[in-house]
Amino acid sequence: MSTQGKIIIFTAPSGSGKTTLAKYALSIFPELSFSVSATTRNPRPTEVDGKDYYFVSHQQFQSLIEDHKLFEYQEVYSNQYYGTLHSELQRIWSENKVALFDIDVKGAYKIEQSKPKNVLTIFIKTSSLDVLHKRLVERASDSEESIEKRIKRASNELEYLKYFDYVITNDRLDLAKNMVKLLIEDFLKLP
Amino acid sequence: MSTQGKIIIFTAPSGSGKTTLAKYALSIFPELSFSVSATTRNPRPTEVDGKDYYFVSHQQFQSLIEDHKLFEYQEVYSNQYYGTLHSELQRIWSENKVALFDIDVKGAYKIEQSKPKNVLTIFIKTSSLDVLHKRLVERASDSEESIEKRIKRASNELEYLKYFDYVITNDRLDLAKNMVKLLIEDFLKLP
Repeated sequence: MSTQGKIIIFTAPSGSGKTTLAKYALSIFPELSFSVSATTRNPRPTEVDGKDYYFVSHQQFQSLIEDHKLFEYQEVYSNQYYGTLHSELQRIWSENKVALFDIDVKGAYKIEQSKPKNVLTIFIKTSSLDVLHKRLVERASDSEESIEKRIKRASNELEYLKYFDYVITNDRLDLAKNMVKLLIEDFLKLP
Repeated sequence: MSTQGKIIIFTAPSGSGKTTLAKYALSIFPELSFSVSATTRNPRPTEVDGKDYYFVSHQQFQSLIEDHKLFEYQEVYSNQYYGTLHSELQRIWSENKVALFDIDVKGAYKIEQSKPKNVLTIFIKTSSLDVLHKRLVERASDSEESIEKRIKRASNELEYLKYFDYVITNDRLDLAKNMVKLLIEDFLKLP
């Protein structure tokens, strides 16, 4: 198997379960390595710098942009930047591994539109926005206002569905996991 | 396994390979039975009445609508009607089988919007409209004008993607077949 230049992208509206599925993929495929994004947002209590994200200041992020050190970047929420470092991809590929991205829909769309070779994009969704709403309420990590914002955002993100290769409805986790396994097994076999 | 009321829908823009995948599913799952649609269009040379379609006149189709004998129907191209007979579904379910539909995107959307239980919808697409165009040219069964029309129609049909449960890119048939197999195996297991 050649891993050179290979990227697997998990993308989804917030709350659709993409991180769960990305972690599952990392747990069963030793060929994959998680691509740690740089971000200007503040770390959450459980997050570790260099493992979950590279936490940087706005000024540092601006320098990364100006010095062309980012493979892609995106302003996700107002004044919150996320991006992928070229050096992160080089690290992963030099270890003969496939980079796994867990990124928002517009970031994934940007990469998809640049039509790189060797990229597998998997879009995770719930069967309806009602199901997504229920899940966000149950997760209980957002205020009601924030949930409304996320739902509105998700509705907009679904408009990008047509640009991605595979769409998986994640209402039943076991099936979604099996789909992910099948897609990645196949992708790793490609020359 | 209970098959009562179960429906599997293959839908896709024309030329995406949905019929190939539907036939594959029928060949490996004896639990499935092809739902023969009624249509007002003329039979093609190889098509058999009652096997590929029930070929009916416009007047007959109008009666089917008025007598509420159709589960769903759709004007697909100008003045060409397609529909599914309730009696066809009853026939299939009375044989303890799952109905397999091979229908156009708007027909599938109509069923999806009626939110029936026990329906699996699989949307088949090519990775881009360019790939679809190439495939329609190679199939050589349409005039250039007809191909342009199909591409325009396909572009519109992709807007419906977000309503379906699973989207499979059919650029590599083997992978698409494996995805179909996995989805149907799982669906048949549901109570």
